[in-house]
Amino acid sequence: MTQAVHGGDVLSAAERYGGDASKYLDFSANINPLGPPQAVLQVLRERAADADALSRYPDQRYRALREALAHHAAVPRESILVAGGGPALFDAVVRALRPASCLLPVPAFSEYQRVLNATQTPAIRFPLRAQTNFALNVQELQAALLEHRPRLCVLTNPHNPSGDLTDRDDLLALIAFAHDIDAILLIDEAFIDYVPEQSLTQVAARCDNLIVLRSLTKFYAMPAMRVGYGVTSPALAATIAAQIPSWPITALAADAAVAALGDDAYEQRTREANERERTRFAHALTALGLRVFPAHANFLLVETEDDASLLTARLAERRRILVRDCSSYEGLENGRFLRVAVRLPAENDRLIEALRASLRRS
Amino acid sequence: MTQAVHGGDVLSAAERYGGDASKYLDFSANINPLGPPQAVLQVLRERAADADALSRYPDQRYRALREALAHHAAVPRESILVAGGGPALFDAVVRALRPASCLLPVPAFSEYQRVLNATQTPAIRFPLRAQTNFALNVQELQAALLEHRPRLCVLTNPHNPSGDLTDRDDLLALIAFAHDIDAILLIDEAFIDYVPEQSLTQVAARCDNLIVLRSLTKFYAMPAMRVGYGVTSPALAATIAAQIPSWPITALAADAAVAALGDDAYEQRTREANERERTRFAHALTALGLRVFPAHANFLLVETEDDASLLTARLAERRRILVRDCSSYEGLENGRFLRVAVRLPAENDRLIEALRASLRRS
Repeated sequence: MTQAVHGGDVLSAAERYGGDASKYLDFSANINPLGPPQAVLQVLRERAADADALSRYPDQRYRALREALAHHAAVPRESILVAGGGPALFDAVVRALRPASCLLPVPAFSEYQRVLNATQTPAIRFPLRAQTNFALNVQELQAALLEHRPRLCVLTNPHNPSGDLTDRDDLLALIAFAHDIDAILLIDEAFIDYVPEQSLTQVAARCDNLIVLRSLTKFYAMPAMRVGYGVTSPALAATIAAQIPSWPITALAADAAVAALGDDAYEQRTREANERERTRFAHALTALGLRVFPAHANFLLVETEDDASLLTARLAERRRILVRDCSSYEGLENGRFLRVAVRLPAENDRLIEALRASLRRS
Repeated sequence: MTQAVHGGDVLSAAERYGGDASKYLDFSANINPLGPPQAVLQVLRERAADADALSRYPDQRYRALREALAHHAAVPRESILVAGGGPALFDAVVRALRPASCLLPVPAFSEYQRVLNATQTPAIRFPLRAQTNFALNVQELQAALLEHRPRLCVLTNPHNPSGDLTDRDDLLALIAFAHDIDAILLIDEAFIDYVPEQSLTQVAARCDNLIVLRSLTKFYAMPAMRVGYGVTSPALAATIAAQIPSWPITALAADAAVAALGDDAYEQRTREANERERTRFAHALTALGLRVFPAHANFLLVETEDDASLLTARLAERRRILVRDCSSYEGLENGRFLRVAVRLPAENDRLIEALRASLRRS
């Protein structure tokens, strides 16, 4: 249970900066601020304390989950992989493929490197640059694939921590290119629910060199309940599934996921609220003199002339507001980047107000 | 999510043999028949539908769990490993050690072989024999260790499926022997809570060549809620922890485990009820002409002159009773072995009655 630095660790923040962990307003994790769907809470209320259900192995519930995921992603059940979150799925993928090397655009979610370390897989960095809004240049990536010939390449779309979106057509071209040089693309779509029309799950289900990872924890606001899924060709899915320990998720997680996937109105509401508020929030941050990168998910990457670590500490100590200091991200070590979740309007206003008071006068 | 044959799969049983899955009386999984502790149900009732808790990453709850586990096993926190069940822990151990081979007494829990396959680790079988009640002969095991020099050896104590207990002193001698030839012992104590004085967790915490796995799912009747733990030296624990994906269990599983570990009265009640009923049940089975192997956990291995698969089918079809046909266990393929959980007296009487009607007249 050794943990890398990650968002949402209010307990460590409270120890470091003082105060009660439960009182922190947390912008450091990208969780849907609407909270979990009512249907999820309802299922948990009804089933959590069912002694008989608790006494049974959870695989009895996996079939319904696979059906719901297959329906949601519009792919055959045989293309679906389930595990206790994105990192567990990425781990299974790397173990199944045993790639001699892995191409990894950076900055990147820290769990990728953690898994590559654990599996002793050499990572080849592909730097994304602030000058170009951290956009993925597909031509340059193809050149890197040709140069290094990695067996695996890991992308995140929309990108975390930048929020940049690579266009679906560019990715389709990249998948074809990768196929020709026998490279497998893994695209982590942990935040694609904010731009669902861009998802490549249906392509992945037909494709032997594309694996798409999806998350349920962030969009449906239930990271406490570990569950994520992946989509690829049935053949590759079977190979990867062999690397996932038996009974990877709890019965409640399966039930909660099924309930979440059935709530279309919640999906719609989340997307609309996020898009509206993201635009307003980005404008307000820009008005404070911060550089806000164009974003397509529920978080904003922000560049400041202040020291990001000092600013993070100041917000935590004085306002009990937690933001994500990005200094631990490779490529963002200059200490000028923060990532903030798009929360509810009143909450975002609190951050704006706190930043106004905390930013260095210039 | 491909599953090996295992106990507790009432859904598959219902499909195969007919009837409603929820109506089956399940003797095929070794779950505490008293059901989960009230304290666990209480915690689940209170916290499961807490939207705020659901929106936070579960590692906020792991500290309390580590404390509770360390206290329960009487070892330092640094010696504790946590994952979503025994198979996930065994998987992490094998990946951390990368043994050139693994010595495995058979018959054995099918998940060991599954993990060895997934990690491409050659297994060297060490046969346990019905003639000697499947008892582990430590001298013969030492000879096998000397002959094959495996880096890893996996034992289960009490043994599953036989219920045999290897004496603690014999195991201490074996640990010392293994140490001298640079072999690591993994002892799966999934059922040791029925004979807790035999546990080697405290030895493991000081030992660089001993890993003990413990389960919370069976004794506390909550297999739906994936959580298991391991104990070894702090140094080896750190190496193994690097192979466990981040956030391996849910927040609710952590909370439920803490509640379970605090219920000493439940522990006591379970052990007493099991010992009393196991003795009575074994006598009744013996009186039917079955050979019942000496057992120290909450299940009984039974040898019959009938065909175990046919008998299993007959019990399922006619009585909606599910027992574990052991024909899929290596070493028990002759089809004469059944494993049955020790359940509540009235339930066990139902099985006795059903067996009386179903066994071949001899």
